[in-house]
Amino acid sequence: MSLLIVGSVALDSVETKAGSVTDALGGSALYFSWAASLLNPAQVVGVVGDDYPMAALDEVAARGVDISGIEQKAGESFRWAGRYSDDFTDRETLDTRLGVFAEFNPTIPASFTDAKYVFLGNIHPALQLNVLDQIENPFLVVCDTMNFWIDGERETLLELLGRIDVLMVNDSEAIQLSGESNVYRAANWILDKGPRTAVIKQGAYGAFLVDDGKVFYAPALPLEEVVDPTGAGDSFAGGFMAHVARSNDLSHETLRQAMVYGATMGAFAVERFSVERFGEISTRDVEERVQKFADLVRFEIETAG
Amino acid sequence: MSLLIVGSVALDSVETKAGSVTDALGGSALYFSWAASLLNPAQVVGVVGDDYPMAALDEVAARGVDISGIEQKAGESFRWAGRYSDDFTDRETLDTRLGVFAEFNPTIPASFTDAKYVFLGNIHPALQLNVLDQIENPFLVVCDTMNFWIDGERETLLELLGRIDVLMVNDSEAIQLSGESNVYRAANWILDKGPRTAVIKQGAYGAFLVDDGKVFYAPALPLEEVVDPTGAGDSFAGGFMAHVARSNDLSHETLRQAMVYGATMGAFAVERFSVERFGEISTRDVEERVQKFADLVRFEIETAG
Repeated sequence: MSLLIVGSVALDSVETKAGSVTDALGGSALYFSWAASLLNPAQVVGVVGDDYPMAALDEVAARGVDISGIEQKAGESFRWAGRYSDDFTDRETLDTRLGVFAEFNPTIPASFTDAKYVFLGNIHPALQLNVLDQIENPFLVVCDTMNFWIDGERETLLELLGRIDVLMVNDSEAIQLSGESNVYRAANWILDKGPRTAVIKQGAYGAFLVDDGKVFYAPALPLEEVVDPTGAGDSFAGGFMAHVARSNDLSHETLRQAMVYGATMGAFAVERFSVERFGEISTRDVEERVQKFADLVRFEIETAG
Repeated sequence: MSLLIVGSVALDSVETKAGSVTDALGGSALYFSWAASLLNPAQVVGVVGDDYPMAALDEVAARGVDISGIEQKAGESFRWAGRYSDDFTDRETLDTRLGVFAEFNPTIPASFTDAKYVFLGNIHPALQLNVLDQIENPFLVVCDTMNFWIDGERETLLELLGRIDVLMVNDSEAIQLSGESNVYRAANWILDKGPRTAVIKQGAYGAFLVDDGKVFYAPALPLEEVVDPTGAGDSFAGGFMAHVARSNDLSHETLRQAMVYGATMGAFAVERFSVERFGEISTRDVEERVQKFADLVRFEIETAG
């Protein structure tokens, strides 16, 4: 089923203890669509500058990602540079140049407006609302945001919450948005504002889903080596949404499965710089890793109850 | 099957945003044995001062905890005072008075030396070795430690690692001990030093087991209200060991179950100050909560593989 992502397409320069890359493919839309493509084709709406290495997008296009909604404009592409601490618990932003992304006001191509599964990547909430107005009849709208908008565009964000199905944010963002000091209370606060479901990501620990009055926790897969955590959350979102889209089912059980596919894609993402890992793996690798995830949390207890 | 804990018996004064208590029952041995008693009787070896409210131990004794190994000595009881931040991510120690605990050199009563399941609470590793010398033929020895001993008694601690079955520590302690910057590498480092199994606790996020070449992750149960996190780790240990002792089985599958009982006891512990919660609940409450845990991580995926 059709899956649309609207978000950033960037060039990232990243330093970690494993090495460094310069102007590597990045941005929420690219991580999301690469991860999604292993399960379900995705359509991307984004913007790049005239300095963008368009040929580098061929590989993701070959995987079934429709990149015709990536507009190339005169000017510089969005660039981000950062450095991670050796244990990956901190990261320092060295440089952010928004370039043409600063004026990004997405127009959804006519061929994408019938998308049934929609992910609103982290952009101004007014633009996220504007995207929603252009989609005809979506089955599921999932939305990301960040501290900058929570702080500066709170009212618009609250309006947006009334129109989306799932808010997917980091625990610190949920805490900031809600004013609660507990992540589960923060999730319930979010549900009171409109969404049927909250997904709260907890970095290297995992992520949880609150849906249908139940909580599902997906721990992060154990990794002995992390190369670059950039894009893990967007890859999680791509795996989550692509599984829902290919299942074309919004049941609680499907959302639990989607969390597992999300966690699996997040684990793949961090094993290489940029989106490199997704170019190396197949759908079969994903399904095999999902089985490893199953073993991570499996146990049998018979109780008298 | 017989279960022995050697550790601290203390009086804790704790402040959290939920309130405060003064000279409340605390210490690793008390949290451990209270939690354990809901599944399997426990024997406690510890020391208190002549100021200790011995009558307060009657309730835990009534639950089947053998407190005859708690020696009362002339002097002050071990007291700890601390204050937690509102989100429970930080705690400040306001006062520590070791009292008679400073000279604690455990003598295991003759009636306890045949204990089959032994938990060595956090005391000087030389004393932990000394306890081990007094136990005749234990089936499983699980050991805790802390940053102070990792820093100051490293060689003794390494000797101890060669004689125990399970090291159960916090992630920061595993990182400090191993010198690794990744918790899964730290766990494998620990296994290289002797133990067959490592249990790494990650506070409010959960805990993982590395055993038999496999990793099992037990997320913390979702809690919307935390009253006092003190003793959560010791309660986890009590639930873990008591399940293994009552099963009298050291298989990997039993250890997975034990992690779930540990996580369940940790969740109960933090819902009240001190050991209060364990006085309110029954074994049936524990089993019901284990079912909630099962629902927290349950999902069904059929894959082509």
